[in-house]
Amino acid sequence: MVCGIIGSTGYAGAELVRILSAHPNVTKLFLSSTSSEGKNITEIYPNFFNVVPALLVDSAAAIEKSDCVFAALPHSVGEDFAKKCFDTGKPFIDLSADFRFDGDESTYNAWYDKSYKYKELHENSIYGLCELNRQKIKDAAKAQKGAVIIGNPGCYPTAASLGAMPALVRGIAACGTVIVDAASGITGGGRGLNRAYHFAECADSVKPYKVGAHRHTPEISRNFQMMEKTTNNTVRPVIFTPHLAPMNRGILSTIYIPLHEANPSDSKIAHNAPRPATTEIKERLEKIHSVYCEFYKNEHFVRVLPLGLFASTGAVRHSNFCDISVHIDYSGSALIVVSAIDNMVKGAAGQAVQNMNIIFGFDESAGLTAAPALF
Amino acid sequence: MVCGIIGSTGYAGAELVRILSAHPNVTKLFLSSTSSEGKNITEIYPNFFNVVPALLVDSAAAIEKSDCVFAALPHSVGEDFAKKCFDTGKPFIDLSADFRFDGDESTYNAWYDKSYKYKELHENSIYGLCELNRQKIKDAAKAQKGAVIIGNPGCYPTAASLGAMPALVRGIAACGTVIVDAASGITGGGRGLNRAYHFAECADSVKPYKVGAHRHTPEISRNFQMMEKTTNNTVRPVIFTPHLAPMNRGILSTIYIPLHEANPSDSKIAHNAPRPATTEIKERLEKIHSVYCEFYKNEHFVRVLPLGLFASTGAVRHSNFCDISVHIDYSGSALIVVSAIDNMVKGAAGQAVQNMNIIFGFDESAGLTAAPALF
Amino acid sequence: MVCGIIGSTGYAGAELVRILSAHPNVTKLFLSSTSSEGKNITEIYPNFFNVVPALLVDSAAAIEKSDCVFAALPHSVGEDFAKKCFDTGKPFIDLSADFRFDGDESTYNAWYDKSYKYKELHENSIYGLCELNRQKIKDAAKAQKGAVIIGNPGCYPTAASLGAMPALVRGIAACGTVIVDAASGITGGGRGLNRAYHFAECADSVKPYKVGAHRHTPEISRNFQMMEKTTNNTVRPVIFTPHLAPMNRGILSTIYIPLHEANPSDSKIAHNAPRPATTEIKERLEKIHSVYCEFYKNEHFVRVLPLGLFASTGAVRHSNFCDISVHIDYSGSALIVVSAIDNMVKGAAGQAVQNMNIIFGFDESAGLTAAPALF
Amino acid sequence: MVCGIIGSTGYAGAELVRILSAHPNVTKLFLSSTSSEGKNITEIYPNFFNVVPALLVDSAAAIEKSDCVFAALPHSVGEDFAKKCFDTGKPFIDLSADFRFDGDESTYNAWYDKSYKYKELHENSIYGLCELNRQKIKDAAKAQKGAVIIGNPGCYPTAASLGAMPALVRGIAACGTVIVDAASGITGGGRGLNRAYHFAECADSVKPYKVGAHRHTPEISRNFQMMEKTTNNTVRPVIFTPHLAPMNRGILSTIYIPLHEANPSDSKIAHNAPRPATTEIKERLEKIHSVYCEFYKNEHFVRVLPLGLFASTGAVRHSNFCDISVHIDYSGSALIVVSAIDNMVKGAAGQAVQNMNIIFGFDESAGLTAAPALF
Repeated sequence: MVCGIIGSTGYAGAELVRILSAHPNVTKLFLSSTSSEGKNITEIYPNFFNVVPALLVDSAAAIEKSDCVFAALPHSVGEDFAKKCFDTGKPFIDLSADFRFDGDESTYNAWYDKSYKYKELHENSIYGLCELNRQKIKDAAKAQKGAVIIGNPGCYPTAASLGAMPALVRGIAACGTVIVDAASGITGGGRGLNRAYHFAECADSVKPYKVGAHRHTPEISRNFQMMEKTTNNTVRPVIFTPHLAPMNRGILSTIYIPLHEANPSDSKIAHNAPRPATTEIKERLEKIHSVYCEFYKNEHFVRVLPLGLFASTGAVRHSNFCDISVHIDYSGSALIVVSAIDNMVKGAAGQAVQNMNIIFGFDESAGLTAAPALF
Repeated sequence: MVCGIIGSTGYAGAELVRILSAHPNVTKLFLSSTSSEGKNITEIYPNFFNVVPALLVDSAAAIEKSDCVFAALPHSVGEDFAKKCFDTGKPFIDLSADFRFDGDESTYNAWYDKSYKYKELHENSIYGLCELNRQKIKDAAKAQKGAVIIGNPGCYPTAASLGAMPALVRGIAACGTVIVDAASGITGGGRGLNRAYHFAECADSVKPYKVGAHRHTPEISRNFQMMEKTTNNTVRPVIFTPHLAPMNRGILSTIYIPLHEANPSDSKIAHNAPRPATTEIKERLEKIHSVYCEFYKNEHFVRVLPLGLFASTGAVRHSNFCDISVHIDYSGSALIVVSAIDNMVKGAAGQAVQNMNIIFGFDESAGLTAAPALF
Repeated sequence: MVCGIIGSTGYAGAELVRILSAHPNVTKLFLSSTSSEGKNITEIYPNFFNVVPALLVDSAAAIEKSDCVFAALPHSVGEDFAKKCFDTGKPFIDLSADFRFDGDESTYNAWYDKSYKYKELHENSIYGLCELNRQKIKDAAKAQKGAVIIGNPGCYPTAASLGAMPALVRGIAACGTVIVDAASGITGGGRGLNRAYHFAECADSVKPYKVGAHRHTPEISRNFQMMEKTTNNTVRPVIFTPHLAPMNRGILSTIYIPLHEANPSDSKIAHNAPRPATTEIKERLEKIHSVYCEFYKNEHFVRVLPLGLFASTGAVRHSNFCDISVHIDYSGSALIVVSAIDNMVKGAAGQAVQNMNIIFGFDESAGLTAAPALF
Repeated sequence: MVCGIIGSTGYAGAELVRILSAHPNVTKLFLSSTSSEGKNITEIYPNFFNVVPALLVDSAAAIEKSDCVFAALPHSVGEDFAKKCFDTGKPFIDLSADFRFDGDESTYNAWYDKSYKYKELHENSIYGLCELNRQKIKDAAKAQKGAVIIGNPGCYPTAASLGAMPALVRGIAACGTVIVDAASGITGGGRGLNRAYHFAECADSVKPYKVGAHRHTPEISRNFQMMEKTTNNTVRPVIFTPHLAPMNRGILSTIYIPLHEANPSDSKIAHNAPRPATTEIKERLEKIHSVYCEFYKNEHFVRVLPLGLFASTGAVRHSNFCDISVHIDYSGSALIVVSAIDNMVKGAAGQAVQNMNIIFGFDESAGLTAAPALF
C-alpha cells in the first residue's frame, strides 16, 4: 500500500517517515511539506539520506496517490485535507488536536480558540487511543469502507490515560481529584524555531510550563470520563502539570489516584508511621497490580511491570510500548501509577501507525516490532 | 577562621570545598577523607588543581585544627565526630540525616534502621533549615558558645519545605494530603560506584525511584507539621515521589496543596470549564502570590518569581537560591507551587555554609554571593 | 535459524540482542551470561521485557543449540568458545580484539599483553570489516562450510578505515602521517562499573584518553597498510587520539590525510590566503568527492554525503550506516575526511550481524534496514 | 568603579554580567541591549532575578556613566562605540572580531567581508590574549591614560594559542603544519535563533562545521606567527577543524605539533612498534613537559597538568583557567597538546575581565577566583 504524509518535515512527521519507511505493508511513501515543497527531505533530515524518497511533493499529490493519509500539521489547518480524504474514501489519520474531541466543539473552542469547519467530519471521526477505541475503529473502517478519520491522541493524554485506565474502569479509584504530573523530552515542543528549545536554554535543567492550563488537560479529563461512564456520572477533577526534561524523547507520567477507604487516622499517616509498609498495604497493592496485569493481558503495547520495578522513558525509547508501574504510598492513601512512553512513537507517529494497522486489518504491531533501545 | 571537612571527597564534600575555598572569612581548609587519606584531592577532583590545599589528612587532625567542622558522611557514622566537636566547643554541621530528627529517635530508627549513639547530642542539635530555624540557631550559638550541632536538611525536604512554608504557616492550605512530586539531578545519588548512575543508564531518560517510600518523606512531613503547629494539631498526610532527571544538578519540586473552599461543583471543574481561568480564580492566585512575596520579603535566598514565570533548576544553577513560582489549577481546586534549588548548594553544601554564617555572625550570604549561571 | 550470544549482558551483547530479536531470518535466540546466569536479562535490561527470551543460560547450551554464535566478551577469554564452534562447524563472530590481527600474534601481544591459545584458529580467522573483506568472508564460508571465525572490527578502526579507504586505495593520499582524531559516546566504555562513566563525571564535558597509546592504533595502522599494499610497501605512520563526548552512542572520526603536491608556497597557506578557497582547490575537492562516491557506489551501508554537508553521529543513530563527508583545508594542504558511525551498531553489533548475513548468504542488510533516527 | 556592557543579552554579554556582578572592584553595572532596550534583563535571564540591575538602558547612557566599557556585539557594528570610548578616554574591551587583527585590514576583510571604519583605532588597539600581550596592554594603559581598545580573543584561538605557545616560542615544534582539532559547547553558537542549536538537533550527537574554513583560522595562524617571529620568518600552515559537542560550555583543543627529528624509520612507527613507548620517547616528553611547566610557572590561569593526566572541559567549568596536558605519540613523531577552557569565561567574558584587571592595575584574578566546578 501507499502512504502519504502531509507535514512530513515536523518532528512528528519525520517520525512517521522513519516508521513507515520500514513498515512491511507499505510499498511507497509520498511526503509533503508546505514550508519545504520542492526541496529534498534529506536537506532537513540528513538521517534519511539514501533511505526514503527525498522529494517533498505538494499535499494534493500526496493525497491523490496514497491509500492512507497522515497529517502532522499545526492545529486547525488540516480540515480541508480531512474532507478530501473523507470524500474520496481514504483513511485520514490526524496527529493534530482537531479531531480529538469528536462532536464536542465547545471544549475544542474553549481550549484551542478555533471552530470546526466541517462539523459532520467531527461527528464521524474517532478518537484514536487504540486500547480504548479499537473496536470502534474496526467497526467504522468496515462500515465506512475505510473512510475513517482518526483523531490521534495527544502525547500526554496517551501516557496519562493508559496509566489510569484500569484504575478508573475497574473502579479502583475513589472519588476525588486525579493529579497527572508529567515530564516530556524536548522534541515535544516541535520543530518551530523557539529559543526556549535552544540547547543552552534547556540542557541540564528541568522546568514546568503552562501549569494548570495546558491544552491536554481537557483531553485527559474527557478520556477519564469515558473510562468511568458506566460507574460514575460525574466529571472527575483532573490537575495536569507538564514539565520539560533535558532529553530528546519520552514522556513520564506520575499519576496520583485516590484510593477507596483511604481515610486513615492521623496516626497511620504520620511521618512516624511504621515502615516498611504494613502487610495490609502491600496486599492492597498486589491486588491492584493483578487487576492491571489482567486488564492489559492482551494488549501488546502495554507492559505492566512486575511489582518493585519502575517505568522509565529510557526503557521504551524508539518503541510503541507504554510501560506502567504501580505503587502505593506508605500510608496507603493513594495509588501512584507511573507510565512511560516515547512521545514521538506511542505518543504520536507510532500510535498513528497502530491506528492504520487496525483500519487496514494488518497485524497491529506491523512496523512497530523493533525492541526498545535502553540507550 | 579555619574550616575542616570530614568526608571531603564525596560530591557534597567536594561542593563544600568549592564554596569554602572562596569564602571571604575562611582563611584555611583542612580536608579529610577516610577512603583516600594521604592522597591529594586533585587526584579525584582535577578541577581543584592549584586551587585548594591538596593533601587529604585524617579526621582527627581536621577537627583539631578547625574552628568549624563540616561532615559529609554516610548516615550513622558521624556521631563520634559530633561528640568530639561538642565536647571541645566547636560547631559541627552534619550533612547526613543523623541530626535531622532532633530527639525523635523512633522516626529516625523506623526510616534509617539505626539508633542514636549519644542521645544528648540529638536533644541539643538543631535542624538547619535556615529560613525556619534561624533564630533558634542564633540563640543556641550564643547560649552554647558555638558548640552547636546542625542537622543540615535533606535536599528534597529543603525544596519542598521552602515551597510549602507560606501556604502552611499562613493557613492558605486546606485540610488534606500534600503531594510533592520532585526531580533531582544525578549528583543526588552520590559518588558511590553504582551502575544506575552510569551515563548510558540514565542519560536521555527520566525515571522515578523509591516511590512512596523515600527516606526524605518523614523529614518533609515533620517540617510541614512544625510549620502548622500553631494552626493545626493533626499531622498532614504527605506523598512524596522522587525522580531522577538527566542533569548534573538541581531539584525541582512540584507541590500540590489543597485550597480552602475548593469543592467546586462538577460543572466548574469539568474539562469544558471556561478558559482562561475566571477572574475569581485569578484573584485568588494574586492574593496567594502576595502572601508568598510578603512572607519571604527579607529572605535573601528565597526568590518568589513574578506571576506568570516558572521556577526552573537552570536559573539557580551553582547558587544558594530557592526559586518559587506559584500557580493555580484552572478550576481553582489546588495551589501548585514549584520550587527549584541546586541540590548541591541550597540542598547541601550551600545551606551548610549558610548555617556556619549564622552561627558565626557573618553576613548570611558570605561566600554565597555568586550569581546563578543559566548554563 | 537460531543464534546464540555469549556475553549478552554487556552493552555490545545487549545491542546484539536488540538487533537479532528483529532479524527476519532469526527464529530463536539463546542468551548467555557468565555473570548473570540463571537470571532474566530483563532484570538488567528492562527494555527487553516481553520482547526477548529472558532466561540467561550457560554458554555451552547457547553454543550447542545455535546455528551461529556471537561472543561479546572481554579480550582473551573467548578462544575456547571459538575452538568449540570451529570444531563443530559453526560460525563464531567475535566482538573482542582476539581475532582482529589474524596470524600477527606479536602485535596482539604487544598491545593486549596476551598470547594466542589456539594459533591455528587465528590463521583461519578473518578480519570482519565487511567493505574490505567481503569476498574473503564469502569464500571462507563456502570453503569451510560455515565454520568461519570472524574478528569483528573495533569501533574506532571501523570509522577510521571506512573514512580513509578510498583515499588510500585510490592513491589520493600522499606520503606522511595520517591523523585520526575521534570522539566516542560513553557506551564505548562498556558496562563495567567505573566511576569515570558516572553521569556526573562525564556529562557536559569532553575529554581525551589514552592519547597516542590506544589499543585501536595498531588495528587502524594495519588496516591502512592492507589498503595500500598494492601501491605502497612502507607502513604509514598513524596518530590516533580518542575522546569521550557526553552522548550515549556514536563515533565521529576526523581524519587528516596529506595530499599530493601539497607543498604550497608560504603565501598560499598564510592566514591571509584568499578566501573563499580558490577554484583550483575546489576542483581538487570535487575530484576527490567523485572518487569517494564511485568507490562506495555499491556499498549499502556507506553513505558519501554531498559536498557541503557534514557527517554527524546523530544522523546515523541506531543504524548500521557509516556517513562520510570530505573536505579540504582552505590552503589545499590536506584532505579532511569526517566519518560517523553508531559505535554500538556499525562499530559493534550491527557489523557483526552484517558479517552473519554475508556468511549465511542473506541479504546483507537483513535486520539492519531501520532508518536512522536523528533524535 | 562602574562598568557598562553593550550587548548584554547575548550569551557572552550575560556571562560578563554574571562575572562582573561579583567583581570586588565593580560597584555598579550599566547594561545595554539594542534588541531589548527598556525591558528587564531578568525577562531574558531569570537567573539574574534580584541579583543584578535589571533595566536595560541605551548604549549611550551605558558608555557615559561607565569607567570601563565592554561590547559583546556581532562583528562590525561596534566601531562607533569604540570611537566614543577612545575619544573620551575610556577603555573599550571588544568581544567581537573587529579589533583582533590590529592594522591587518586585509585579513579581516578577507575572512569577515567587512572594512575598518576608523583605521586609526585599529592601529592603536591591542590583541587581548593576556598571557601573550600583558606587558603591551599595561604599557598602553599607562601611555594612553586608560584609553585602550582591546580586541578580546576568539574562543578557539585562545585555547589553541595557549596550548601551542610554549612549543612555538621555545622552538620545540619542527617545521610543518599544525593541526588544531577542537570541540565546543553549544553556547559557542550564540543566542541568535537557529534550529541547528535546538536541543533535538544537537543533543546526543557530535558534528563538525565549517571544516577548513572557520574564521578563527587566520587568528590562530597569526598568533602562531607572533609566537615564532624571533625564530622563524615563514608562516606556518595551520589546519583548524571545529566541532559542536552536546554540552553547554567548554572548548577542548587537541593540537598536533610536528617534532624535531621526527623522521623515524618505518619500523619505529609501524603498528607493531614496541609498547609501551621507549624510554627515549618518554624522556623526550618529560623534557617537553618541563618546558611547559616552566613557561607558565607565573601564569595563574594556565594550569599545566602533571604527566599522565588529561585536560577536560569539565575541570575548568565556570572558571578562567586554561588546562593543558601534553602527550606524545607512541612513535614519537608528534607532540599532542590538549588544552581546555570554558568558552564563555577564558574564551570570552572571563578573559575580557582579566584584560580590565590588567588595564586598571587590579589583581589579575579579581572577580575570577571561584574554583571550577567539576559538575
